[in-house]
Amino acid sequence: MSDVAPPVAALIEEFSKLPGIGVKTAQRLTFFILRSPTDQARRLSDAIIRVKESIVYCSRCFNITETDPCPICSNSSREQDVICVVEEPLDVLALEKTGVYKGLYHVLHGALSPMNGIGPKDIRIEELLKRLENETIREVILATNPGFEGDYTASTIKRDIQNELNLPELKITTLARGLPLGSDLEYADEGTLSRALEGRREL
Amino acid sequence: MSDVAPPVAALIEEFSKLPGIGVKTAQRLTFFILRSPTDQARRLSDAIIRVKESIVYCSRCFNITETDPCPICSNSSREQDVICVVEEPLDVLALEKTGVYKGLYHVLHGALSPMNGIGPKDIRIEELLKRLENETIREVILATNPGFEGDYTASTIKRDIQNELNLPELKITTLARGLPLGSDLEYADEGTLSRALEGRREL
Repeated sequence: MSDVAPPVAALIEEFSKLPGIGVKTAQRLTFFILRSPTDQARRLSDAIIRVKESIVYCSRCFNITETDPCPICSNSSREQDVICVVEEPLDVLALEKTGVYKGLYHVLHGALSPMNGIGPKDIRIEELLKRLENETIREVILATNPGFEGDYTASTIKRDIQNELNLPELKITTLARGLPLGSDLEYADEGTLSRALEGRREL
Repeated sequence: MSDVAPPVAALIEEFSKLPGIGVKTAQRLTFFILRSPTDQARRLSDAIIRVKESIVYCSRCFNITETDPCPICSNSSREQDVICVVEEPLDVLALEKTGVYKGLYHVLHGALSPMNGIGPKDIRIEELLKRLENETIREVILATNPGFEGDYTASTIKRDIQNELNLPELKITTLARGLPLGSDLEYADEGTLSRALEGRREL
């Protein structure tokens, strides 16, 4: 980048820091910004600052929000005795889109990953246990991602609940595993297919 | 996006306007910004504004620059009688990286594309003809992209030079076509292979 003007090199460098954006893509984005109208570039620039300035974490569920508690936590028409535990705010978004779930959430902000040095203190497990202790919860749905880290996180949380809290009535569930809709049995991996067999239901 | 806080939805929308960035990627980038330190987000936001405020087009070669004329045009140690015509500023960057080319540039800012309604007035052809008229140029290298639009642009420029200017001494060249380094003959497309055959050289 020695031959490019410093402000251009700087923007290429900043874009490259974003996940999944390599130098080539960063160059492409930078030259797109250069060509685009100033007010469009300013809208992007402002949106970045605004998101950092106005977004906080809900002190109850740790979802991202402009108001604390968040709109979901403060919506009294939602079921107050079910908590769905997810890894990221995007997971809340995905579940809300289904329109099926009417309870509350708890966002862990990550999954346990011994490989990457992410332990129980790095995600919001302690805060979940406190909620289960203080709120009257009937069911906790552990909706971490299917896969090693998500499954390990879910089983750790389940063990923590059973070891540290005295809640014999609490139902601990997880999302069903099986063939995704529109998928092809022929191409399903063994793990998914085994889970789909184990979880088979009467028609 | 109805359930997401408006500043988050706004940033997702602005990211989605960038080329090659779909909604899913825009969400990922937005949540990355949310998690990253405020000063990193601010550096990106500032870099976007700075690039728009400080970058101008060189009035001679139309490359992007902080100073007009640009460092290449004002570098008297470069050959002043060769112009390499390219479509985009990124092409200048790519050619400069080779370290082989020592002449000047002319950035068209696009290629002719009748399909997309991009005609001669939309790119810097007129400005190139003026330079050829006013500067003493020995060779013009038409380094547009190989492919229909680039080839059409190059042949149009060649025709314009020959029709509108009286420069019988001017050499008009184009970059060699052939097999790229490290490529596999077996997988080369017919067009590339035909060009490689036509342009074969004695060893």
